[in-house]
Amino acid sequence: MYRNTFFSITISLIFGFKISGQTEISKIFTAALQSDIAYNNLKTLCEIAPGRISGTESAARAVEFTKQIMKDMNLDSVYLQEMKVVHWSRGEKEIARIMSAKNGIININVSALGLSAGTGIRGITAEVIEVKSIEELKSLDRKRVEGKIVFFNRPFDHSWFNTFRGYSAAVDQRVDGPREAANMGAIAAVVRSVTSASHDHAHTGVTRLNENGDNIPAVAVSPVGSDTLSNWLKRDPGLNLYLRTNCEMLPEEISYNVIGELRGTDYPEQIITVGGHLDSWDNSPGAHDDGGGCMQSIEVLRLFRELNIRPKRTVRAVMFMDEEIAQRGGLKYAEIAAERDEHHYFAIESDRGVSSPIGFSIDASEEDFFKLLAVQDDFKEYGIFSFFRGGSGVDIMFLKNASPGVVLAGLVTDPQRYFDYHHSANDTFDKVNRREMQLGSAAMAAIIYLVDKLDIFCNSSSED
Amino acid sequence: MYRNTFFSITISLIFGFKISGQTEISKIFTAALQSDIAYNNLKTLCEIAPGRISGTESAARAVEFTKQIMKDMNLDSVYLQEMKVVHWSRGEKEIARIMSAKNGIININVSALGLSAGTGIRGITAEVIEVKSIEELKSLDRKRVEGKIVFFNRPFDHSWFNTFRGYSAAVDQRVDGPREAANMGAIAAVVRSVTSASHDHAHTGVTRLNENGDNIPAVAVSPVGSDTLSNWLKRDPGLNLYLRTNCEMLPEEISYNVIGELRGTDYPEQIITVGGHLDSWDNSPGAHDDGGGCMQSIEVLRLFRELNIRPKRTVRAVMFMDEEIAQRGGLKYAEIAAERDEHHYFAIESDRGVSSPIGFSIDASEEDFFKLLAVQDDFKEYGIFSFFRGGSGVDIMFLKNASPGVVLAGLVTDPQRYFDYHHSANDTFDKVNRREMQLGSAAMAAIIYLVDKLDIFCNSSSED
Repeated sequence: MYRNTFFSITISLIFGFKISGQTEISKIFTAALQSDIAYNNLKTLCEIAPGRISGTESAARAVEFTKQIMKDMNLDSVYLQEMKVVHWSRGEKEIARIMSAKNGIININVSALGLSAGTGIRGITAEVIEVKSIEELKSLDRKRVEGKIVFFNRPFDHSWFNTFRGYSAAVDQRVDGPREAANMGAIAAVVRSVTSASHDHAHTGVTRLNENGDNIPAVAVSPVGSDTLSNWLKRDPGLNLYLRTNCEMLPEEISYNVIGELRGTDYPEQIITVGGHLDSWDNSPGAHDDGGGCMQSIEVLRLFRELNIRPKRTVRAVMFMDEEIAQRGGLKYAEIAAERDEHHYFAIESDRGVSSPIGFSIDASEEDFFKLLAVQDDFKEYGIFSFFRGGSGVDIMFLKNASPGVVLAGLVTDPQRYFDYHHSANDTFDKVNRREMQLGSAAMAAIIYLVDKLDIFCNSSSED
Repeated sequence: MYRNTFFSITISLIFGFKISGQTEISKIFTAALQSDIAYNNLKTLCEIAPGRISGTESAARAVEFTKQIMKDMNLDSVYLQEMKVVHWSRGEKEIARIMSAKNGIININVSALGLSAGTGIRGITAEVIEVKSIEELKSLDRKRVEGKIVFFNRPFDHSWFNTFRGYSAAVDQRVDGPREAANMGAIAAVVRSVTSASHDHAHTGVTRLNENGDNIPAVAVSPVGSDTLSNWLKRDPGLNLYLRTNCEMLPEEISYNVIGELRGTDYPEQIITVGGHLDSWDNSPGAHDDGGGCMQSIEVLRLFRELNIRPKRTVRAVMFMDEEIAQRGGLKYAEIAAERDEHHYFAIESDRGVSSPIGFSIDASEEDFFKLLAVQDDFKEYGIFSFFRGGSGVDIMFLKNASPGVVLAGLVTDPQRYFDYHHSANDTFDKVNRREMQLGSAAMAAIIYLVDKLDIFCNSSSED
């Protein structure tokens, strides 16, 4: 009801188009909201291929499953793009145990960081130095750090609406902390999980290797475990932490991007990419990160088929492999695009969780960005108001060099819940709402439909 | 990060104010996002006073608890507003059993509708007539309906972004269906739950009494149960449904609105109300509907206290009693306002679930509405874009007659999940996200701060 009232005070920038265009856009959103196909496929993916980090059998199952979904959709072509991927293995579940002569013994929940080293089967035991930042660590005397375990414990900052800011403000501890600790002579690092939640799940993620290519053992500690460790340290600064991780780097494996295509009617040589990444952390079902983004991308093609929309340009749904560790899928996709001199017109990625969409982050020239604003009003009815210049997606950003002039975008979703799930066992299918996910599918389908239909961008050959 | 970029392209309508005002607004949002007090209070409310429908002991506990919270906050005054409330009682849990000579016997999940009658202890058994609408029912020969149980089975329509539209399009079956069925001679009505979910929870709600003040037995059936009944009817149209409900109308009880006040510095006689309703359906913890709205309203006062904001006008947090059945709390509040000739400047209610806020629905003159748009830009940074003219809240709307010229508003939240929870046992505390809830608290605090500070509305005496 209120949407009607609202709409009557909206002034359309492109009124002439809206009359005809709105119909297709509302058809897309309605069809998406009425379908449970993508949602049910996400359920299956989380069930048959949880923990699908690159190089694993689970990742291989995810490749097969998504290929089969698209094969069953009567697309113009479905194929794999082969590459070598890093295969880091967690091995047996890690153990972290606080041992205090004063207070006793307690285990805390941890999860080894991606690319971190194993401790060896006997584990390591050492005193702990707690710091709130890499700067604080660096300010310490090296002798105080040598032989110790460094505990990075700066919490997630809730101050901002945009939780990605809170995440960015803390994640250096995970990405760079262990390496910096090693440089100071530490034998291991434990890092407070970078999460907006205060639960007992540990949130993993990749940590950067040292220059010599190796690393010390490093784990993420759950928020509850971090508070425990910090409190116990206050009462007994000399306590020991026992840590056993069983990680190892295995030989690289062959894996694949999975691609489905609808061939363009007018400019088939121009490519529009919609994608997510198929791998997930090994400790997680990866429902929001990023099984949801993959299923939304396939859903864009399904919506076009259902509504009989024939894009002028070739639209590809791409499930990128290995986003979480080394981005080999994104790199391979761009490498092949460059080799073949492909003309990439537009690419959009969904990798911010599949909550309600609220906008698009656009990586484009100012000119293309302002051209895109012409379609902004078509999205307001669906709660999508924010069009801004910013980063797109980790997998598609490599296209920038491969196909100069390509316009890149990221689907921006309500960020409040995402970092409660991200990179943890808490990222389960039941955290996904079908309607919210499908609004994201529709938003991507709609923006692809509009930029293609209207030949909006400078790199369009229709303006040549 | 991207918010900065976004902001740089936002053009402020009231730039001069923004410079000074933005600071207070961002302080409000930051303080809200960093606090877990309201969230933890909601947890306690759901634990100690679930199913707090008016007239019950649980409702009385909710009155005591919220009064105590506000007493502990050092407000200028905390008091109760007494009234009589309807006391409808479900009695023992109801039973609905499909009995088919062909296919066997199966129970389905149901929940008696508010104000509906009991079947008597022996229950009733009758054949079932399935219809998709009241119109379809009315088109039937009365003889086909007499002595039967009418089954209203039109499902929730997912087509729209705004789930309140899907709800509105189906809820007449629950509100008016049983009465219309009774008028046609039916002995009971069973109604498909008005919900966006497809689970096995039954969603109750009030049904309207007949003109003679009585009613037939009527229950909401879970979506799963409705599908079962419909499928069994296809295979055996002559099946029987056994229904036993134990509802009764008890004598009216004394209950209360709970009110906390911060006295205004400049115009203490002008009132700003922020509220939610304290009662919930008896089958539900009432986390989203509307424990969350109550705790957000108290949180507005707490934020003002924490940030040392002294409003020029008196700000009242009001927990309204008996929204779900007879709105006695809202009526009493307005009655007293009229009696005392109170000057109500602004009132806002949160009763759409405590998901992320996306806007405000404004019930005001066109002139006041356009004046309010002057502050719209202050909210964009927090994902709140929609200011539109529409309904406010069921409890505060009675102020319209009591204090002519009052501007009313409803906090509008992301509607995707609300009707998965609404009026059912599924409306549990774990479905509430702390950050989303607190963004709503902040949004209400911010709009109250701004309209008060800027003396925005026509009914402001500062413009006299």
